[in-house]
Amino acid sequence: MNQSALARSWVEHANGHGDFPLQNLPLGIFSRKDQAPRCGVAIGDAILDLEAVLAAGLFDGQARAAVEATRGGALNAFFALGRGARVALRERLLELLGEHSEHQAALKPLLHAASECQLHLPARIGDYTDFYVGIEHAKNVGKLFRPDNPLLPNYKHVPIGYHGRASTIRPSGTDVRRPKGQTLPAGQSEPSFGPCARLDYELELGIWIGQGNDMGDSIPVAEAAEHIAGFCLLNDWSARDIQAWEYQPLGPFLSKSFISTISPWVVTAEALEPFRCAQPARPEGDPQPLAYLLDKRDQAGGAFDIELEVLLLTERMREQNLPAHRLTLSNTLSMYWTVAQMVAHHSVNGCQLQPGDLFGSGTLSGAQPGQFGSLLEITQGGKEPVELASGEVRKFLEDGDEIILRARCKRDGVASIGFGECRGKILAAH
Amino acid sequence: MNQSALARSWVEHANGHGDFPLQNLPLGIFSRKDQAPRCGVAIGDAILDLEAVLAAGLFDGQARAAVEATRGGALNAFFALGRGARVALRERLLELLGEHSEHQAALKPLLHAASECQLHLPARIGDYTDFYVGIEHAKNVGKLFRPDNPLLPNYKHVPIGYHGRASTIRPSGTDVRRPKGQTLPAGQSEPSFGPCARLDYELELGIWIGQGNDMGDSIPVAEAAEHIAGFCLLNDWSARDIQAWEYQPLGPFLSKSFISTISPWVVTAEALEPFRCAQPARPEGDPQPLAYLLDKRDQAGGAFDIELEVLLLTERMREQNLPAHRLTLSNTLSMYWTVAQMVAHHSVNGCQLQPGDLFGSGTLSGAQPGQFGSLLEITQGGKEPVELASGEVRKFLEDGDEIILRARCKRDGVASIGFGECRGKILAAH
Repeated sequence: MNQSALARSWVEHANGHGDFPLQNLPLGIFSRKDQAPRCGVAIGDAILDLEAVLAAGLFDGQARAAVEATRGGALNAFFALGRGARVALRERLLELLGEHSEHQAALKPLLHAASECQLHLPARIGDYTDFYVGIEHAKNVGKLFRPDNPLLPNYKHVPIGYHGRASTIRPSGTDVRRPKGQTLPAGQSEPSFGPCARLDYELELGIWIGQGNDMGDSIPVAEAAEHIAGFCLLNDWSARDIQAWEYQPLGPFLSKSFISTISPWVVTAEALEPFRCAQPARPEGDPQPLAYLLDKRDQAGGAFDIELEVLLLTERMREQNLPAHRLTLSNTLSMYWTVAQMVAHHSVNGCQLQPGDLFGSGTLSGAQPGQFGSLLEITQGGKEPVELASGEVRKFLEDGDEIILRARCKRDGVASIGFGECRGKILAAH
Repeated sequence: MNQSALARSWVEHANGHGDFPLQNLPLGIFSRKDQAPRCGVAIGDAILDLEAVLAAGLFDGQARAAVEATRGGALNAFFALGRGARVALRERLLELLGEHSEHQAALKPLLHAASECQLHLPARIGDYTDFYVGIEHAKNVGKLFRPDNPLLPNYKHVPIGYHGRASTIRPSGTDVRRPKGQTLPAGQSEPSFGPCARLDYELELGIWIGQGNDMGDSIPVAEAAEHIAGFCLLNDWSARDIQAWEYQPLGPFLSKSFISTISPWVVTAEALEPFRCAQPARPEGDPQPLAYLLDKRDQAGGAFDIELEVLLLTERMREQNLPAHRLTLSNTLSMYWTVAQMVAHHSVNGCQLQPGDLFGSGTLSGAQPGQFGSLLEITQGGKEPVELASGEVRKFLEDGDEIILRARCKRDGVASIGFGECRGKILAAH
């Protein structure tokens, strides 16, 4: 195995500061003009067509089985194969794309400029679950309503989550139609109907489920990491005015279900391995998790150090060629529960998880200004507008605004990797 | 067209008091020993194999296209065809199965005793949404927590709903494994982990979505009935102790996601047509719904008069050959919102509905004792046990208990139809 923390690729632009060096190798579903969607791997500024590499006879054994499972334009069957097939494919890709590869000549025609390809959803999403494990977000939002007691009593015991809408998850670049709905205007006792006036983003980590479990069985926390295929970025667009009026007693519904946007590349569990770290110590006085959520190995290495960023680009900023405005700089270390704890909790009642299910982490904010993962937090519920270099201000998102999520993993002595972008631009309500 | 409100079938046991006379013709997915699941229609005590009827050349035109769309063992593509194909299939089945059919000899071998067939889920369920439109249930449950003010302020404006778990919906007859989870025992400040001690049923109407909508579009309430393919019974099994501890602030999650059981026959919108009725008048003082929820034709005929029943059979009752104990006798007229209003509301924000999505109505209770659709209501949160003829009492469900949901539509001068059963038996926790 020629994997090395700093190994280089023969592919141009794959070495240096981009999101997709040899160490990343995220998988996705792409298409070129007039071509059916198929599996590819991002390398530098290019996408390697894995179906074509398969046809060229360059995969054997488990790696071959892995690529065969991607046929049909969705990664579900590949996810179902689990870690062994994923690792075999990764090792073979490290050989093929590494700087000492014997197959450069054969592979070059199978590389396509990413800018000429369209990216699709990587899998058919069976069920989508959105968690709420960003404790600083939970505190920031809780403070708006309950200044003295921002966290509810269950928060530090239960990895809170709820079911989201799977049918409206879309890949980066899909426009976001401003939703309409019921709201209760301030000071009124009767609701109104109209376009959302408090449209917001939420910065989240997305988690792709690999192998699932049968209904009635549970996935122990010690085994849960084996059931995670990879990661993406997730923008859980939120209509705050609709949410405030609808969410009692059964939770958010139409305020979230109009669209959720994900970055289309599946950053594998293996690519993120160097960026694992210990779960940050629980503050003094926090309760111990119940036994079904506790595993020593998970506590020692189940968290991730991933830097997260949100940028805003308005219509006027685009016209004036101004750079995007950074709204958020945050980190996945603000997760109060690990992804393994999320999997263990979700399945502890016997709920069946399936390959291609998607989890959202919940909004990942830090405790400080500049680290807040939503405008609700940044503007304190619309009270403190953001000022932009274009001379504009924003309390919430306006038509034409574009939100861009990015993620970056950095560690000394290891090649940095990124997630690619998760973008969406607001269109006026119908 | 030989459809008549009292027309008879040549099939034995199809005329009289069963659920499946000629007027019903519900569709489902069934299999016989060693056979792949395929589409059938229930008639009397039998199932007619529609794929075999197709192979026999007895379908033409739209009816033929309808049955072709059922291939592959799921009705999603058939649902997507919409009302025209469904009606054409129904009219042809009324001819084929009516007492004057010329095809009795050809069809008899294609009829199978239902008792020898296995029923499956009728469709791949993309998304499952559970509503809360049973106003008496909402009041009964609200009273347990807020005696003076049982309904929240949004209830009479918003058809409240939330996303449910699609992966664990199972057909009638699937055993129900008692879930484990976190609960906060009375008087404690720290949660415990263990088997659910307050396991409950919920009596609901299930609604199958037919043709869907594109993301960003809405389905107007006046057109919403066209998007409904059919109906079933739904038992939204609930772990009350898990629910009480987990549901703030994002709604029910693991307390519901361990399993939901549905009756496997899709009772079509056409079969229920004679049992439509006016939406019961809103009580004096209730607000008018917002315009996007109001349609004259829907108000005049968008409700249904369907009698609903819940039976309990314990292990001891089975041993003693005692009849099942009726826990609930209720009716769909307790729905505060019509199914068309549910569809219009769900899509008003641009949320995409897809063929094969399933809605639950929420628990359908009446206002009086004997009409409550859950044990939570019947036993007042476990305070007033139910006494059974076996000498047993029940606050909540025990291992070995079986819950049976039934539904029946009756009207003078029209053949009664039923839904078939929705059964589930509790197994001890793992």
